[in-house]
Amino acid sequence: MKLDFSVAVHSLLYLDAHRPNKVSSRELAQSLHLNPVMIRNILSVLHKNGYLIGTVGKNGGYQLEKALAEMNLGDLYDLTIPPTLSYARFITGHSQTDDEVQSSEIAANISETLTDLFTVADRQYRAYYHQFTMADLQADIQHHGHFLAKEHDLES
Amino acid sequence: MKLDFSVAVHSLLYLDAHRPNKVSSRELAQSLHLNPVMIRNILSVLHKNGYLIGTVGKNGGYQLEKALAEMNLGDLYDLTIPPTLSYARFITGHSQTDDEVQSSEIAANISETLTDLFTVADRQYRAYYHQFTMADLQADIQHHGHFLAKEHDLES
Repeated sequence: MKLDFSVAVHSLLYLDAHRPNKVSSRELAQSLHLNPVMIRNILSVLHKNGYLIGTVGKNGGYQLEKALAEMNLGDLYDLTIPPTLSYARFITGHSQTDDEVQSSEIAANISETLTDLFTVADRQYRAYYHQFTMADLQADIQHHGHFLAKEHDLES
Repeated sequence: MKLDFSVAVHSLLYLDAHRPNKVSSRELAQSLHLNPVMIRNILSVLHKNGYLIGTVGKNGGYQLEKALAEMNLGDLYDLTIPPTLSYARFITGHSQTDDEVQSSEIAANISETLTDLFTVADRQYRAYYHQFTMADLQADIQHHGHFLAKEHDLES
């Protein structure tokens, strides 16, 4: 869900603000007011994917491995909110009692058609995030309006 | 949810295939294998918004008011899946115990930044659907690949 993405970007911004210190998952959980288990799960994903260096033990903690400008926002979105593999629960089913030719054609084919439509729409949606890096997110935090201004550029 | 959109477009295609007959909500519910209450709720929204002519009573039923090419797919998406008004549950909260300047700036501003990001992303997502009409959906049902081909046009 979207919260995982928010937690990931908030954690990365926090770690960036605390460079070069090590930050424990406990400190992050307290700062974000979130369940430590959730924080640890998300940090573990970021760690596995090379965003963080982590050490365990008494003086352990996490540090950023890369600069914010090297972290693509779309990559983080894909990592924390994987694409839907099946749209089955969003699509009306095939009707077996419907014996009219034209109606059967609709019922037999609507699932593939809507799956294609939703799949392409989702890819376009993700392409939006891929235009940005974590440095853009930091810029918007410092001066709101960065993403809104980019939208106007796209339209004009 | 997305199912409402699927049910709406499936119903419109069914009514189109049965022109000029009147179709009852019961017949539609049976054909789509869905709860009649759900079908009636969605038909009611389509009726209120001028997509259908409906008559009640013994020989009552629904008929299409417009051609498929006059029904914009984005309008149908907005009607059945309204934009999220608040992203609050997807965004990490403000930390009141965090007294470091840099961290506070993040905590105090991340909600507005992520709301802007999600809002623009959602508008771009909806713009995708607005490129098409129900006639495109019908074309894809008759020959799959219509939406996938359009995606390649966008990329090249």
